[in-house]
Amino acid sequence: VDRTAYAQARERHAGLAKPPGSLGRLEDLGARLAAIAHRCPPPVPSSPALVVAAADHGVHAQGVSDWPQEVTAAMVATVVSGGAAVNAIARTVGAQVVVVDVGTLRLGPVPDGVRDERVRSATRDLAVEPAMTLDECRTAIRAGARVAAELIDGGTDLLVTGEVGIGNTTASAALFAAFTGADPADVTGKGANLDDGRTAHKVDVVRTALARHAAAGRSGPLETLASLGGLEHAALVGVMLAGAAARIPVVVDGVVTGAAALAAVALAPEVAGYLVAGHTSAEPGGRRLPDRLGEPALLDLSLRLGEGTGALLAVPLVQAAARVLTDMATLADVTRAPS
Amino acid sequence: VDRTAYAQARERHAGLAKPPGSLGRLEDLGARLAAIAHRCPPPVPSSPALVVAAADHGVHAQGVSDWPQEVTAAMVATVVSGGAAVNAIARTVGAQVVVVDVGTLRLGPVPDGVRDERVRSATRDLAVEPAMTLDECRTAIRAGARVAAELIDGGTDLLVTGEVGIGNTTASAALFAAFTGADPADVTGKGANLDDGRTAHKVDVVRTALARHAAAGRSGPLETLASLGGLEHAALVGVMLAGAAARIPVVVDGVVTGAAALAAVALAPEVAGYLVAGHTSAEPGGRRLPDRLGEPALLDLSLRLGEGTGALLAVPLVQAAARVLTDMATLADVTRAPS
Repeated sequence: VDRTAYAQARERHAGLAKPPGSLGRLEDLGARLAAIAHRCPPPVPSSPALVVAAADHGVHAQGVSDWPQEVTAAMVATVVSGGAAVNAIARTVGAQVVVVDVGTLRLGPVPDGVRDERVRSATRDLAVEPAMTLDECRTAIRAGARVAAELIDGGTDLLVTGEVGIGNTTASAALFAAFTGADPADVTGKGANLDDGRTAHKVDVVRTALARHAAAGRSGPLETLASLGGLEHAALVGVMLAGAAARIPVVVDGVVTGAAALAAVALAPEVAGYLVAGHTSAEPGGRRLPDRLGEPALLDLSLRLGEGTGALLAVPLVQAAARVLTDMATLADVTRAPS
Repeated sequence: VDRTAYAQARERHAGLAKPPGSLGRLEDLGARLAAIAHRCPPPVPSSPALVVAAADHGVHAQGVSDWPQEVTAAMVATVVSGGAAVNAIARTVGAQVVVVDVGTLRLGPVPDGVRDERVRSATRDLAVEPAMTLDECRTAIRAGARVAAELIDGGTDLLVTGEVGIGNTTASAALFAAFTGADPADVTGKGANLDDGRTAHKVDVVRTALARHAAAGRSGPLETLASLGGLEHAALVGVMLAGAAARIPVVVDGVVTGAAALAAVALAPEVAGYLVAGHTSAEPGGRRLPDRLGEPALLDLSLRLGEGTGALLAVPLVQAAARVLTDMATLADVTRAPS
């Protein structure tokens, strides 16, 4: 990011027609948007796009979710038909929704309207072996980056991350523990309404996976992502890398996209400057993300659905932060104004 | 509000294609919107309007602000010319902005584009006498109600409250103390960047005003509003009453609109059900508002500008909460979906 543009935005804010600092976090965000765009004022994002990455997880075999894996494909169909929560919110904020299947379990073809980038049918069980090979992981990253780059070529100026995948909060917890050093018990939550006993089991599964991964002795960021993550995490890493490369902000949603953010920043630390935490996850892991991204999430509405719902709700805040820098009169203008 | 529609919304949410409760506060808000509209699903607000009530304050003579009173009229001119923070945010969320002058100090005519509803040139000094007569207060309430009713007749389906007025955080602190029983020191803040010494003086002014009001022995809600409030508070009470009467949600901004909300609810307790707290005020008084409105504010971005900025930023959240209830598929739909 561009520290000069950041400083210019801070200076500009100090001269706008308001008490200095009175727009609070909107001023911080505006300065970050200037740094991301490498210019001040930053452009006002007008074409946001949500990328929903979908995949299934071998770790489902460990009993970490109450939901059958078929729900992943059913939710993909719901999103592409426009009936998911994320579609309702996307209509509200004027975002397009792109669904990318990077590895759901399915017998038949990928439905119309879903971008087919399937690397394999679900990951392997991360509790017993690496979830992906390094090649599979790289292929999924490239798929996400390709989708994002095509969107940007088509005019997208704000990327929003989302996901669908039964079992993916288990893989996310493993990534949070691996990338932050936290104890699995502190970053593993109840996901889609798991009860307390099953959540304790989920913690054990994550602990087993981390021990297995540590014993393998390959702890580079790509190895960790491949070993413990999901295909959707890898695809979202690609989205984040592509957004950063194009100097476009990427809004992070909850714990799953947050786990992808940790992997992306581990792979390329400069990506952190391009990520905006949209919503604080209700999952315990998600609450650790701000420490890595440098600022707390914009929203905290107790959402724990994923899909990109929390990130989409933050889109108008990003637009407003940029527009304030573009549109507002200065204190000098106001003192010249007739009264 | 309609408890049956509220219960219907809760039931509808439980059957939508997501884990129960996973949309968190968006579900709570959606149920409240159903209760407000007296139907489920509630309509999705498509025509939000911000009413910015402007007035000056006799208590300015006590040295409670660093800003000269001329800034009120200058800020009114800035809002009507489109260069204020609130205009930038209104463009982002698609809201119209209506500026109502209910009592600024000005020598010349009210500028073009400003609705002229001036009751008097500023209030009296609330530290030494009632700020308004009961008649003046009623006239300002009626002006706000009239503006809101005309907007609603013209298609406005979501009211947003804002204000401009140098000195109005002092009157707001007095209203908060009077309506909540809080000590002035606990509800009086630094307003537009007052330093610590001046803030302590501001607390003393509020304390003097409360003692004067208590000694007068007329503690009904209208008497309290007239004695301690501003003309913009009264006008905003009118906006809130008109919104509630038309079964339309009214979004509250920060400490000034929050003080008006306390007065409105004191005058007509059922109005509380129609108010949505948009943004937590950075002023200490504002942090007490959720106790009265029954739920915390939707946003907490450390804004302390007023004008309606925080309330406007909450508009997409209100729209999304309604749209989720309107647009989402049910769990039954999803299980029937091809996978």
